Amino acid sequence: MIAKTPQPPYYAVIFSTLRTEIDEGYEKAAQKMEELAKQQEGYLGIESVRNKLGITVSYWESLAAITKWKNNIEHTVIREKGRALWYKKYQLRICKVERDYGFEK
Amino acid sequence: MIAKTPQPPYYAVIFSTLRTEIDEGYEKAAQKMEELAKQQEGYLGIESVRNKLGITVSYWESLAAITKWKNNIEHTVIREKGRALWYKKYQLRICKVERDYGFEK
Repeated sequence: MIAKTPQPPYYAVIFSTLRTEIDEGYEKAAQKMEELAKQQEGYLGIESVRNKLGITVSYWESLAAITKWKNNIEHTVIREKGRALWYKKYQLRICKVERDYGFEK
Repeated sequence: MIAKTPQPPYYAVIFSTLRTEIDEGYEKAAQKMEELAKQQEGYLGIESVRNKLGITVSYWESLAAITKWKNNIEHTVIREKGRALWYKKYQLRICKVERDYGFEK
């Protein structure tokens, strides 16, 4: 649930979304995107929550890995469907993780 | 709901959490933390979702603003309570937002 990431630096893509009321095809596409992301080179992990607002953070080894994932053909097709159908609004932020701290009981 | 942030670069703190079963005091403390964060110098915005996994992303002008918020006395007291009572596990990641893209219908 909480991604196991290596020592920084690594990269994070924060994808904050508001959905439309169109559900058709969404769940399947979201699952497909997660499966595809996991197969990419440089993929480190993912954390995802929705509750009206959705936040999905994916973690990557490098900016190059993120660019390659962005340009993946299947990803591009689903992104276009996302804009056309499922998302009302979103913000995507590409970040360099400089430090991290963990706590566990 | 989705934070309105300025042109990058700016900073993000990704706080990914798993809760214990102890609810007492949690909601009030979470609200208090959000109110306090908003009063800090360099605060830019916040996005927060919980659904078993919780992800709260706060946005800041600088690393100095994040450090100041980290050292805030009320924040420190609540963080200790969070570790003692409300959180089973968490990961906190401090990131530099290098690029962002928005979409809106």
